Amino acid sequence: MQVAVLAHESFPDRAKTAVGLLRYGDHEVRALVDQEHAGDRVNNHLPDVQDAPIVASMADVPEVEALVIGIAPIGGAFDESWRPDVRAALERGCDVFSGLHDFLEDDEEFAALSAEHGGQLMDLRKPPEDLTVAGGTAGDVDATVVTTVGTDCSTGKMTASYELRDAARERGLDAAVVPTGQTGVAIEGWGIVVDRVISDYAAGAVERLVETPEGLDVLFVEGQGALTHPAYSGVTTSILHGSAPDALVLCHEAGREAVHGYESFAIPSPGTYADIYERLSGPVSGASVVAGALNTAGLDADAADAAVGAYSEAIDAPATDPVRDGVPEAMLEAIR
Amino acid sequence: MQVAVLAHESFPDRAKTAVGLLRYGDHEVRALVDQEHAGDRVNNHLPDVQDAPIVASMADVPEVEALVIGIAPIGGAFDESWRPDVRAALERGCDVFSGLHDFLEDDEEFAALSAEHGGQLMDLRKPPEDLTVAGGTAGDVDATVVTTVGTDCSTGKMTASYELRDAARERGLDAAVVPTGQTGVAIEGWGIVVDRVISDYAAGAVERLVETPEGLDVLFVEGQGALTHPAYSGVTTSILHGSAPDALVLCHEAGREAVHGYESFAIPSPGTYADIYERLSGPVSGASVVAGALNTAGLDADAADAAVGAYSEAIDAPATDPVRDGVPEAMLEAIR
Repeated sequence: MQVAVLAHESFPDRAKTAVGLLRYGDHEVRALVDQEHAGDRVNNHLPDVQDAPIVASMADVPEVEALVIGIAPIGGAFDESWRPDVRAALERGCDVFSGLHDFLEDDEEFAALSAEHGGQLMDLRKPPEDLTVAGGTAGDVDATVVTTVGTDCSTGKMTASYELRDAARERGLDAAVVPTGQTGVAIEGWGIVVDRVISDYAAGAVERLVETPEGLDVLFVEGQGALTHPAYSGVTTSILHGSAPDALVLCHEAGREAVHGYESFAIPSPGTYADIYERLSGPVSGASVVAGALNTAGLDADAADAAVGAYSEAIDAPATDPVRDGVPEAMLEAIR
Repeated sequence: MQVAVLAHESFPDRAKTAVGLLRYGDHEVRALVDQEHAGDRVNNHLPDVQDAPIVASMADVPEVEALVIGIAPIGGAFDESWRPDVRAALERGCDVFSGLHDFLEDDEEFAALSAEHGGQLMDLRKPPEDLTVAGGTAGDVDATVVTTVGTDCSTGKMTASYELRDAARERGLDAAVVPTGQTGVAIEGWGIVVDRVISDYAAGAVERLVETPEGLDVLFVEGQGALTHPAYSGVTTSILHGSAPDALVLCHEAGREAVHGYESFAIPSPGTYADIYERLSGPVSGASVVAGALNTAGLDADAADAAVGAYSEAIDAPATDPVRDGVPEAMLEAIR
């Protein structure tokens, strides 16, 4: 699919969905819409992803099938400054993909434009209507199920899932990412945004996801939140138990010591955190933390190497920064 | 309020809401509607609760303001065999209270009868529309917050919460139950059914609940599910962290070794389970399991005493069967 990606005033650091699409998606991104960096190219800001021109508005976007909202603000509200571009896309008959809490289809203007011009409003966060409680059956999946878990939000769980998938594929395995958040769902074109599912059905939604792909060797389930996060731990637990993993990969950002946005809450040390995940996984699927992914983006090369080494020791498992250093063979062996 | 309670074919063992209302509610129950036991009285089946006649249908119910659906089936679906009684109640202008997943207000016939005769459809499981993510502020509540947690569903968390409340009140404390499930909400007339809240807001809903009562000494937060339950652990975690408790009371049914309805999943031993709760609570509010409630309904008196003793030793804290033996002073001291 040929798409444009909306990322006003947010690219690249606060446009997680846009960056994920550019790095891991199969879609052809024909333009990034960001008035702040209009005239630049994506690779001026992010060298190692699919390149595309950056334009100021939908008026400068060549022919595309869809506009994807590439920003995932805290709270998930629609920002009215995006309205002209969404309107323009719909007037051109494009589909619009959104992972926001505010559904596009509930907006009267967008619903009318969709009906008039034929473009679909794809609210990726809207869960299926036939979800149920988990049956406890995810453990029967034939594939090896690896769930990425974290010490906080935004520690690289989705990134680690994709880097592990790519490494597994390079070694000849049939591997896929099981998407549980709006970016993963936007990249894959399937999945369920678990944080939007009612609590009773959250584990059931994840169970359905891991039971969906057929004939694969390895599934990398994208985790969400963190197990001791004061707000999101319920989502984390539903994914941990609903996916019934065979193995866990613990994702952490080097140097982060307090929960982002909840600074009065300390993050337990990586070794302690791995232990908490294992104790909670134990009675349901008995998964251990077999590898670690450390985000060292804030460090220089030497400091990053030292941090990865210390992290590996702390969790007693192979570790890497998958973006900086790739996925070593030892880690893939540990996972299988 | 004068009410009738619907409990066809389910009283007393599978009518948790009905029994809770009879035991702990402030409402006057004027009749229990159960065709199986019509002609009996409630106290023929449950001696230690508010008494009421049991009748076959709404036609035999004296004047009441409301009909409460007193059954909470797994899955929460409306059973069509209840339709004639709900219809009859609405035709009399009564309100109808329901904790089912299926909302009465979405039923065309009931909505029309409500509009015509003026009785309200009270879907207790419907969450407020202005919920948000948790702010991490529940720990600032002045009252001592005690959350009841369990080793499985239906192990007596709500019962323990009410028995502890009553014991605290007898000792002169201002105490309340914070209801998180349909029965508690039906008894209290306020609260949020947390399993119906979208996962992202579940902890935020609980935070709002514990911040609602003012000027009290002790709050007993009704827990839900269990931390290693394959389907409901996300709800449990959201309550554990959203309520930011000062202390935990672990509720267990004597002899239960596998998760009810998920028999391939073993329940960890009580001591191990207490440890898992404490490890997960630690980084958020640091609560310990300070007391235990054991449901010994299936045992004779001697076996029950022995089981309570062994349970107390296993969790290294005072324990009781609060229904059989009340709440001893030592337990209340441990909680404060």
